[in-house]
Amino acid sequence: MSEPRLVEVRRNVLKQNDVIARGLRERFRESGVFVVSLVSSPGSGKTTFLERTLTELRPRYRVAALVGDLATENDAVRLARSKAPVKQITTGTLCHLEAAMVENALQGWDLRNLDFLFIENVGNLVCPSSYDLGENMRLVLMSVTEGEDKPLKYPTIFNSADIAVVTKNDLSSAVEFDWNAAEKSIQSVRPGMRVFRLSAKTGEGMSEYLEFLSRQLAEQRAVAQT
Amino acid sequence: MSEPRLVEVRRNVLKQNDVIARGLRERFRESGVFVVSLVSSPGSGKTTFLERTLTELRPRYRVAALVGDLATENDAVRLARSKAPVKQITTGTLCHLEAAMVENALQGWDLRNLDFLFIENVGNLVCPSSYDLGENMRLVLMSVTEGEDKPLKYPTIFNSADIAVVTKNDLSSAVEFDWNAAEKSIQSVRPGMRVFRLSAKTGEGMSEYLEFLSRQLAEQRAVAQT
Repeated sequence: MSEPRLVEVRRNVLKQNDVIARGLRERFRESGVFVVSLVSSPGSGKTTFLERTLTELRPRYRVAALVGDLATENDAVRLARSKAPVKQITTGTLCHLEAAMVENALQGWDLRNLDFLFIENVGNLVCPSSYDLGENMRLVLMSVTEGEDKPLKYPTIFNSADIAVVTKNDLSSAVEFDWNAAEKSIQSVRPGMRVFRLSAKTGEGMSEYLEFLSRQLAEQRAVAQT
Repeated sequence: MSEPRLVEVRRNVLKQNDVIARGLRERFRESGVFVVSLVSSPGSGKTTFLERTLTELRPRYRVAALVGDLATENDAVRLARSKAPVKQITTGTLCHLEAAMVENALQGWDLRNLDFLFIENVGNLVCPSSYDLGENMRLVLMSVTEGEDKPLKYPTIFNSADIAVVTKNDLSSAVEFDWNAAEKSIQSVRPGMRVFRLSAKTGEGMSEYLEFLSRQLAEQRAVAQT
């Protein structure tokens, strides 16, 4: 069995990733930019949610985004409608972003000109969990159409995330979404996790989330000055 | 860079998988069971779809299912409501099923007593694509809530599948699903692919799909007798 060798090689790849991620984190801190990464399954609405986030933050903040996908530049095109700078990272057959790809994509960008940088990972609830991208906050997104037990089935990614967002709330009644069951799933996997419930389509619940982001940025900068 | 070594080790794992898959395929053929594997992103409705499939086929056929997940036995519990024999495979942190897991799960089952065996893969649009499970047919499922461009973003899995099923059609108008755009995406990635549009919740479109399965089984048995 080549399983032990595979584990060993994978460990080296992760170690290498951690080194680059540490460099990125230091760079983000020095530049004063707050970096949020987004993970979710394909089709949970990451891009719509991110487009709305960028559009609503833009009047008050300098925002930009990197977006990862196996193929196509579709998401970058969609996000560009927000008028924020956006760069697409295509990963080929790789099911996650790595710190080196982020580093590479950031070439030519002066991070000191940014307040928020968003990194949309490849749509996947497994692969991205082990790869540190140097982000300040990892956000896991699930939609009401996916079912309430997703956190129980994908505990690692929920564990590796800092906050959870439940989106497509406008479809809640159509899919008979059980909010208590979902909240219970999340809390059993990650007790105390902050959860936002919203609809990026109607805008319902967005302001609470955006205020949370603003406070995070303010806190980070307050810490940096002490 | 350890990338080339990783690729080499991965190739060996895949080769090993192919050997076991070949054995499974031979066993399925000899037993006269028609094996369908299901892949999709998490939350696209695989389990609901499979539960309905099992329930509707059971009066006429002998059916059973294996269901893969990282954690929990939730899906096996749900599928057991169909009264068909169901076994859960939990993969830990692995984002796909492998032929060896299927072989292992089938221990103690006499396949000659089955007409259809369904294998529900881990919810993932990337990892399962390279792993042959010896199945007769691979079915890729996408829901109308995921967006029309999923095939363009995950071409490999759509390419590795034999048929596509678009589900949650009852939510089509709520999410303003563009059927033509979806069909175009699928056909551009996999020209000529057979696509079924249905709702496992309301039952709409199920009979066409089930008749298709019946024909597949009949054809396989006709071939086996020649």
